[in-house]
Amino acid sequence: MTSDSVVRAALRAVRVVVCLAALSPLLPPAARADEGMWTFDNFPAQAVGEKYGFTPDAAWLEHVRLSSVRLAGGCSGSFVSPDGLVMTNHHCAHECIEQLSTGDRDYVASGFLAKGGADEVRCPEIELNQLLSIEDVTARVEAAAQGTSGDAAGKARREAMSAIEKACGTSPGLRCEVVTLYQGGQYHLYRYRRFQDVRLVFAPEFAIAFFGGDPDNFTFPRYDLDVTFLRAYEDGRPAKVDHWFRWSPAGAQEGDLTFVSGNPGSTSRLQTLAQLAFDRDVVQYDAIVFAAERKGMLRAFAARGPEQERISKAELFYVENGYKARRGQLETLKDPAFAARKAADEKALRERIAADPKLAAYRGAFEAIERAVAAHRALYPTHLYLEKARAFQSTLFTHARDLVRAADERPRPNEKRLREYTDAKLPGLEQALFSEAPIHDEFEIAKLTFSLRRFREDLGPDHPAVRRLLGPKSPEELAQELVQGTRLEDVGLRRQLYAGGRAAVDAAVPGDAMLAFARAVDEGARAVRKEYEDAVESVEDEAGGKIARALFDLYGTSRYPDATFSPRLSFGSVEGYVSNGTRVAPVTQMGGAFGRHTGRDPFRLPQTWLDARPTLDLSTPLNVATSNDIIGGNSGSPVIDREARIVGLVFDGNIESLGGDFWFDRAVNRCVSVHSRALLLALSKIYGADRLVKELTATR
Amino acid sequence: MTSDSVVRAALRAVRVVVCLAALSPLLPPAARADEGMWTFDNFPAQAVGEKYGFTPDAAWLEHVRLSSVRLAGGCSGSFVSPDGLVMTNHHCAHECIEQLSTGDRDYVASGFLAKGGADEVRCPEIELNQLLSIEDVTARVEAAAQGTSGDAAGKARREAMSAIEKACGTSPGLRCEVVTLYQGGQYHLYRYRRFQDVRLVFAPEFAIAFFGGDPDNFTFPRYDLDVTFLRAYEDGRPAKVDHWFRWSPAGAQEGDLTFVSGNPGSTSRLQTLAQLAFDRDVVQYDAIVFAAERKGMLRAFAARGPEQERISKAELFYVENGYKARRGQLETLKDPAFAARKAADEKALRERIAADPKLAAYRGAFEAIERAVAAHRALYPTHLYLEKARAFQSTLFTHARDLVRAADERPRPNEKRLREYTDAKLPGLEQALFSEAPIHDEFEIAKLTFSLRRFREDLGPDHPAVRRLLGPKSPEELAQELVQGTRLEDVGLRRQLYAGGRAAVDAAVPGDAMLAFARAVDEGARAVRKEYEDAVESVEDEAGGKIARALFDLYGTSRYPDATFSPRLSFGSVEGYVSNGTRVAPVTQMGGAFGRHTGRDPFRLPQTWLDARPTLDLSTPLNVATSNDIIGGNSGSPVIDREARIVGLVFDGNIESLGGDFWFDRAVNRCVSVHSRALLLALSKIYGADRLVKELTATR
Repeated sequence: MTSDSVVRAALRAVRVVVCLAALSPLLPPAARADEGMWTFDNFPAQAVGEKYGFTPDAAWLEHVRLSSVRLAGGCSGSFVSPDGLVMTNHHCAHECIEQLSTGDRDYVASGFLAKGGADEVRCPEIELNQLLSIEDVTARVEAAAQGTSGDAAGKARREAMSAIEKACGTSPGLRCEVVTLYQGGQYHLYRYRRFQDVRLVFAPEFAIAFFGGDPDNFTFPRYDLDVTFLRAYEDGRPAKVDHWFRWSPAGAQEGDLTFVSGNPGSTSRLQTLAQLAFDRDVVQYDAIVFAAERKGMLRAFAARGPEQERISKAELFYVENGYKARRGQLETLKDPAFAARKAADEKALRERIAADPKLAAYRGAFEAIERAVAAHRALYPTHLYLEKARAFQSTLFTHARDLVRAADERPRPNEKRLREYTDAKLPGLEQALFSEAPIHDEFEIAKLTFSLRRFREDLGPDHPAVRRLLGPKSPEELAQELVQGTRLEDVGLRRQLYAGGRAAVDAAVPGDAMLAFARAVDEGARAVRKEYEDAVESVEDEAGGKIARALFDLYGTSRYPDATFSPRLSFGSVEGYVSNGTRVAPVTQMGGAFGRHTGRDPFRLPQTWLDARPTLDLSTPLNVATSNDIIGGNSGSPVIDREARIVGLVFDGNIESLGGDFWFDRAVNRCVSVHSRALLLALSKIYGADRLVKELTATR
Repeated sequence: MTSDSVVRAALRAVRVVVCLAALSPLLPPAARADEGMWTFDNFPAQAVGEKYGFTPDAAWLEHVRLSSVRLAGGCSGSFVSPDGLVMTNHHCAHECIEQLSTGDRDYVASGFLAKGGADEVRCPEIELNQLLSIEDVTARVEAAAQGTSGDAAGKARREAMSAIEKACGTSPGLRCEVVTLYQGGQYHLYRYRRFQDVRLVFAPEFAIAFFGGDPDNFTFPRYDLDVTFLRAYEDGRPAKVDHWFRWSPAGAQEGDLTFVSGNPGSTSRLQTLAQLAFDRDVVQYDAIVFAAERKGMLRAFAARGPEQERISKAELFYVENGYKARRGQLETLKDPAFAARKAADEKALRERIAADPKLAAYRGAFEAIERAVAAHRALYPTHLYLEKARAFQSTLFTHARDLVRAADERPRPNEKRLREYTDAKLPGLEQALFSEAPIHDEFEIAKLTFSLRRFREDLGPDHPAVRRLLGPKSPEELAQELVQGTRLEDVGLRRQLYAGGRAAVDAAVPGDAMLAFARAVDEGARAVRKEYEDAVESVEDEAGGKIARALFDLYGTSRYPDATFSPRLSFGSVEGYVSNGTRVAPVTQMGGAFGRHTGRDPFRLPQTWLDARPTLDLSTPLNVATSNDIIGGNSGSPVIDREARIVGLVFDGNIESLGGDFWFDRAVNRCVSVHSRALLLALSKIYGADRLVKELTATR
């Protein structure tokens, strides 16, 4: 979980948050119905069969896995036609839609519909991954670390993972990733088919995709059409795929068994008390306060004018969404019932490990994590601001860092590089670096001023890194100098510097303020990253692996690992719940959207909806709540029935689901989807997207 | 602590924060040297004599009390000449200095110096109070509540307090206040001489008053000249006063005994565990997150242009200051050592009350507070947004509410009114309502949009109050309608409506959007206020009083009450401390300011300082740290020696002092002052303020 892309992924995708009972290490999961984000190679088909009367077989699981896709930037999706048509959320493609817009043609506001194939436009930064195979490489990773411990072991494991990924044959068309499961208890090699030519086919207006806006975010009942259709291309033509989801004629109905196939980004259900306390007291609190200030800044920036509002909209959504999600998560961390249960579980497991001679090898693991957390606490702000680049919120800085680091890293042997510059990662890096998306100086300066000021504020004006990087300058002044003193907004130059490697970058640094700054940052950033990897990550992985193995010894693999932004399958059903004493029905109707329409953002329906109203059956189901266990990263996941047909499209969780990062409460946690019938009805009656409807409903 | 002005006071004055060991109810204070914000009628002169060899007598105490003043808006000050000259902080007069400025003459930036008496300009909203007498009225207040309990008792006490204040003879020149001490253990009547004609005499540039800005705020070593001189007027002429502080020739030196006379705003040292937990989990956290967003909004507003920066500067200072103070306070509340000590103290006291038959009358008090806290938790957001007006951050709204409420309240008998509309409070209300300070529409709209959005966000779009007040409108739209649809920026109209009472207001409501809105708000606001008073305030006062009386029975009055923004005296000495392993000397020198000068805000010295540099003795003491126990509200307090001569001017506390709201750590908590020698040197050599120097140093 250290690579930047996964962090970005986890952050972007927090909108959708889990629905399932907290994993208690001492109880087998069968005791907690519907819980779990299961890997495809360890799905509890038997348990599903016992509860729901349908037992998925290997062919079914393979079909579902191959029909699903991951959006590498932090979301999920699905193939819905043999011609590479992909369904995901509007909020997963929002950035692309914004990037393809200009002041004159604002597709975020107006929506987008490609009349024919020639009108489908390439998204600058979207990559799709289809999971081809899973291989257990635990033995190889552990063998590399044998005879070492602590930071040496961590380094050996990281190198082994890079070597395995390289050997797997990564290429522009193939993406190989070693996934750390069960906190270091297992290492699996995931091979993905990679699509980097992804084009926009259809998007509705933002006003209906995110109807109710931030006030309604993470709530239910709900009335959103949060959908976008993309298409995977290969060699300039629509990609042919052998597996895709058909469309259910009826869609999800109350009581139906539902599956969700997607990529939950990150959960903390197996974390120890020490890790949870750190999360509660430092990480979440700090992130909420930071997001609040950023939100205030972004809203005031948007108030400067319509163009400023347009170019900052996706970022505001992303920040508000993360802010609200984290507030909910913190509530759970502060909940005494949650704390008591975690404490009891951990106490029991520690006593068991202490008492059972067969578990002797796992002793000391909890204590090691306590020490790692203490180390993390000490270096947290520096690591966050320098290495995680919280101080440098600017696309130009990101490009500069990637160029500077790639120049340093690429000449090294693959396994000696920082992990995000290994061969397996370069295609993703190159896509982002060579993106044609526009960069807006005014917005860059505003964001960078804000983050540099926060950097000085949190570390203090006398911190050596602050003194070295800011010098006598004010944050505003430095931000302006950097943004105005770089030519990195020119994609051609970025390509040239990347191709030219170290020599080209060295030559450019003196004349380019942002490149020079990124190099200056790197000194301190690399040092704190090393400290973090040695004193925190390596120790937590090793000790976490021990705890996981203790649990395997006790319970086998009848448990699921924490989410890692890799493909998972969950099961559940369409079901209401009780909120504040009131019964909430699991399905809303299209008529409800009209009832909530006030004519003012974010409760303003688009004109297309108002015009089409007389032609619509207002009793058509619009949104649906199910008990599937999902979390941020699952946005865009298909909801399918036992015949693997589309019955919905996940886009959110209810407010009760926000604690799902840490535990699951089957009674009230719900994931929230667009109903498949609303999707078809809107495409045909509101948007006249007949080409698309035909493609989705073709029976083959 | 419910009146709005005290809340505003406590908020404004948080910059300066306490320095003293947490009061343990089970230890007499003599065990904790220098601790305490003592009332003038219960000062531990004996203890001071024993430790420092100087025992203040009654005449000394009276002289100090009468030489001190309170700034009713939330600060402290002192008379420093017989002609009503008053010394306080720049940040206490910042709002006045901003109000007297325009786009062309920015006194905040340039500073202000009245060449002669005729050039002294009236501050629109500053009121000074000089404490004339203290009378114990506990018996009268308690007698009124006899035979009742709960909300009836609370109501009876509030009515009795209003009656006592009225009988005391409140007038424009006299201010009477019943102060609730020891959480309801004592009620004292404070009689103040009131000055409402207060004029600006001198202010340095903001750049040196707040040198180091937010980054250096609450830190030490420090280099600020945070001073302003005002003058009290009576009948258009400088007020004559019999008591004022003389100037010490040498100023404070390491090891010297020092006294601070001022008005600490609020502390929570006697709060129970239930109250502290609520503060930690809800109040502080919520306030920090709100302030962070507001800070982001204000900084981005200021970035719109120089005029926007100018008109929002005081508010930004106030928000950033409160934000930083609260973050420090929350750290203490989360500190396990603090929690353990409070828990042990409370446990011991509860056991003592349970075991001792003589204390039987006080049983149940802690449980009652637990219930009150639970009630508070339930109504917290509604009370905060509606009654405390967090949803309506606009000067025009404040005026509208005051007009609407005054029209409703003034016809009632004095003791039946809301407390801030009783006769004793009206002169202060009138000064604020008839203020000539300019109101800026653009800023009003920005603040109101922000707070209305937050109102909808926190209560949710479906909350009845949100639906009723916003209707279908967006926050932006409503804010614009209200600000553009009112004429209340016209002082003449406000005077006319106030004088015209209910009939005039009723007639104006239909044509004035803000007045109509304030009336609409009042319905819900009054209801939640009543709930709060009945279920929270009354219960907490009654139970708090019981706990206080238990402590009196055990220890007598050898203890000080929590701060209540009324005059207090603390003692201590000039003393360094150890921070992060480094010894910090207690005095900085003027040369240090030049060393920290970078030429960029907030580390840019004004040109006057750069020009005067060759003429200055750079070894002159600039700021000084002492162990006096102070907190927000003490800003502007004089630091005096045993001869009651000025040796410094309190303006801040160090970062270690921020937990002073809850306890005191003598080893590291320090209050921070401008040294008296720097004040005189700057006035003479940098500002050429010879008239002022002469007045300050005249020996009489």
